[in-house]
Amino acid sequence: MKAVKIFCPGTIANVSCGFDVLGLCLDSVGDEMIIRKSEIPGIHITKIVGADLPLATQKNVAGVAALAMLKEITYEGGFEIEIYKKIKAGSGIGSSAASAAGAVFGINELLGNPFTNAKLVEFAMQGEALASGAPHADNVAPALMGGATLVRSYTPLDVIGLPTPSELYATVVHPQIEVKTADSRAILKHNVTLKKAIQQWGNVGGFVSGLFLNDYELISRSLEDVIVEPIRSVLIPYFKAVKTASKDAGALGSGISGSGPSIFALSKGAETANEVADAIRKIYEHTEIPFDIHTSKVNPTGCKILPL
Amino acid sequence: MKAVKIFCPGTIANVSCGFDVLGLCLDSVGDEMIIRKSEIPGIHITKIVGADLPLATQKNVAGVAALAMLKEITYEGGFEIEIYKKIKAGSGIGSSAASAAGAVFGINELLGNPFTNAKLVEFAMQGEALASGAPHADNVAPALMGGATLVRSYTPLDVIGLPTPSELYATVVHPQIEVKTADSRAILKHNVTLKKAIQQWGNVGGFVSGLFLNDYELISRSLEDVIVEPIRSVLIPYFKAVKTASKDAGALGSGISGSGPSIFALSKGAETANEVADAIRKIYEHTEIPFDIHTSKVNPTGCKILPL
Repeated sequence: MKAVKIFCPGTIANVSCGFDVLGLCLDSVGDEMIIRKSEIPGIHITKIVGADLPLATQKNVAGVAALAMLKEITYEGGFEIEIYKKIKAGSGIGSSAASAAGAVFGINELLGNPFTNAKLVEFAMQGEALASGAPHADNVAPALMGGATLVRSYTPLDVIGLPTPSELYATVVHPQIEVKTADSRAILKHNVTLKKAIQQWGNVGGFVSGLFLNDYELISRSLEDVIVEPIRSVLIPYFKAVKTASKDAGALGSGISGSGPSIFALSKGAETANEVADAIRKIYEHTEIPFDIHTSKVNPTGCKILPL
Repeated sequence: MKAVKIFCPGTIANVSCGFDVLGLCLDSVGDEMIIRKSEIPGIHITKIVGADLPLATQKNVAGVAALAMLKEITYEGGFEIEIYKKIKAGSGIGSSAASAAGAVFGINELLGNPFTNAKLVEFAMQGEALASGAPHADNVAPALMGGATLVRSYTPLDVIGLPTPSELYATVVHPQIEVKTADSRAILKHNVTLKKAIQQWGNVGGFVSGLFLNDYELISRSLEDVIVEPIRSVLIPYFKAVKTASKDAGALGSGISGSGPSIFALSKGAETANEVADAIRKIYEHTEIPFDIHTSKVNPTGCKILPL
């Protein structure tokens, strides 16, 4: 194989209760990439369509992730990468993670899959670090592994793939205001009360159990964030209205996607997810804020090869 | 049925990472109770063997739990309770929870099981509150439901039964020093760092996943408590030595049982659990501290009826 076309899915990090540990992979929202073997050693980003991002390898998350991978293998040639961005940068559904994950997934395919998913997550995290200021795996892990993922630990990195009920759908709205990941991390408090931390880890346990048990009601009850959402949600216009409208339309729950400004809602079934989308659309239509809404099945596979 | 004899198991609360939310039921350690229907209305504790505890219903955890239950049902008669304590009070393996759970389980049996497990947990918690100063479910839930349990939330109470791998064994050592639950709660800090809270809820997610996946290695990696253990363990002599010796003897991990002073270790298989017990025994044998050691399978059923 000399070239490969990749679908690089968007992802929801944190998933309410699981700040910095949980992630969920989307299906109908994602970038595309074409990666070709090249005789010129190194990583060369030759084209970026749909976003104003740097072509310089060291300044591009896909480039940095790919370089991290090449360092661990003896390979004489190099790779050319074309990136077709469809996920808006700064939207909060893992735009940079999609690029980082897609690059290492695609190159791994071209090399005959020498690396495990766990290693790919490590490489992609190094790309992510360029975008968010710190290496995080809660978007790259679901982008690479699909479904839901739990980053149990960073030192050492320990990522666990979780099952997802087959009828789990996400509705994601992106109100197009700018919230930088670094800024939205900066407003978080250094300390939390033990009481709230206990509530949060009870919910993490509940959410994970709900995934294993196919228990949508338990997933619903566990979609609660008493620590981060109360602080970050003030940065997102109409957050509370969206939350209420989603629930009223039948969603299992909702919250901030990653560091925002996108808001996600989870539902049982495509029909409900679409009704939730309609309810959210009505809210932003009455504002001056431009927005996108996507409805997506939870994607069980992650990055995948597309026909070239 | 006019009388019933009950086995009321000891339990491990917290289970390292799951402070206030996780619990595990023991099999070979527990109290016994005989409960008889009586024509005299109310709850009457007629005998307590093995412990110096109050017979007065309102001052006894079994009495308080049973009264909470009777309030929610129309029943003309009453119940006599004999308690045969085998779990030492203040040992940290749910002595008061065993009494509270046993009382409501037994009376429910005598009444023809009108109450669900979830309701029984609520009643038993009211007994627990008498002992620990606050209503907690992390011992009464596993005592009643067996296996591992997750208290996702207290308001409203939401207890989830978790599967336990069939080869999961606990070794529990009780160094006989006095650590009161109320005291060991008082030394906890009101605030924790967000960083440590994230580590903790990553581990809760990992532990719960490990139970569902039958993944002993994942259970092992998740048995880590970065918040409570560093503070409370200073109250328990030879804690670090026990932890090291357990791991060296093949345990998956170890930690403080409930609020201590008992220390638990989990192992895969009875043989390893017994080797862990031997290793721990060697530590306390060289001290002046009296101690008990028990090895127990994780009990999948909780309270059960014994032949009378």
